[in-house]
Amino acid sequence: MKISVVKDILAANDRIAQENRTLFDRHGLLVFNLMSSPGAGKTSLLERTIDALKNDINIGVIEGDIQSSQDAERIAKKEIPVVQINTGGACHLDGNMIRDTFKEFDFDNLDLLVVENVGNLVCPAEFQVGEDFKVMILSLTEGEDKPAKYPLMFRESKVLLINKIDLLPYLDIHIEKFREEALKVNPSLIIFEVSCKTGEGLDAWYDWLKEAVKARSAA
Amino acid sequence: MKISVVKDILAANDRIAQENRTLFDRHGLLVFNLMSSPGAGKTSLLERTIDALKNDINIGVIEGDIQSSQDAERIAKKEIPVVQINTGGACHLDGNMIRDTFKEFDFDNLDLLVVENVGNLVCPAEFQVGEDFKVMILSLTEGEDKPAKYPLMFRESKVLLINKIDLLPYLDIHIEKFREEALKVNPSLIIFEVSCKTGEGLDAWYDWLKEAVKARSAA
Repeated sequence: MKISVVKDILAANDRIAQENRTLFDRHGLLVFNLMSSPGAGKTSLLERTIDALKNDINIGVIEGDIQSSQDAERIAKKEIPVVQINTGGACHLDGNMIRDTFKEFDFDNLDLLVVENVGNLVCPAEFQVGEDFKVMILSLTEGEDKPAKYPLMFRESKVLLINKIDLLPYLDIHIEKFREEALKVNPSLIIFEVSCKTGEGLDAWYDWLKEAVKARSAA
Repeated sequence: MKISVVKDILAANDRIAQENRTLFDRHGLLVFNLMSSPGAGKTSLLERTIDALKNDINIGVIEGDIQSSQDAERIAKKEIPVVQINTGGACHLDGNMIRDTFKEFDFDNLDLLVVENVGNLVCPAEFQVGEDFKVMILSLTEGEDKPAKYPLMFRESKVLLINKIDLLPYLDIHIEKFREEALKVNPSLIIFEVSCKTGEGLDAWYDWLKEAVKARSAA
């Protein structure tokens, strides 16, 4: 009984996500769903990425948080379109919440829409929002056992950014082990090792993302 | 409709949690529910706490994870009773999962039962398991905006351990701001600043916990 309720919710969400997707397709818009634990660096990654790419690519952002508008305020400083969703308690974004933001965007003038999810390594991975793919960030400080313990998000993601590599000298952690554990769960993960604080490693991510936007708009 | 389903689930859980609580009361057992984001240091805190207190206090642990038994294996090395719950996808523990472990414990020979929840700063705070109180850990690396963005867990917790203070010199973070932001959400939070890596600050936590166990068994 409980299971069938959950299935109904997921099936209803998938339908709405598919409708969102159809709309994104019509505009040749690349959409990715950005997920991580709280404090792994999602907003910092976006700030850096917007600075690096906004002269070449028109970017819009949807900020998901349970409450507060701190992240949207950070992004708004970059002078790009941003909408804050407050879930009011819910631990993830869903297709319907994303659809509710559409009136705030001019999709004809966007190339890339980033959906920054609620910080949570579990639930967001279960809910499609209409994205082309999922990107996740794992902070080095979270430890190398996370892929084995939270496998769904690693399995669902196309890209993994391992963040805060500037802290590597101060942690009892081996980055090779991080990669290994993640690839065990999802062998086709594209992995970037980065520091959103120093900028190290981010150029490779920017290049990859620019190519993905180009491929999408040409499709 | 969706809301009433959620309410039913929470009400049913509260009933089971209350039954668990009655059983814990009968045994004069102190129970706390340990919560945090993934990788904030829950298991490391338990390892240290068990080492420090196991000669004075009989401790049992319930380990909650979506999958894997790595944490239970770490705790089992301390030669205390431990049970692993695998939620198989669910993002939190509930009263029923806890009840299912009771046959594995001899409550007459325990003073303290720790329930280590799934790593998630959102959902675990909504589900009682029959605990006396909730304890949460926040890693310094998660950033000082977390209380404003994930208020429920801070509001529901009695104790907050700010962990990984050994990394303070390498982060753009002010620990006073951390305390302020947490106390804004919950002015009665008891806060300990600790490093589960170096042991710094943990003595105060051990003393506080010993007193709580003593008060509970005397009640």
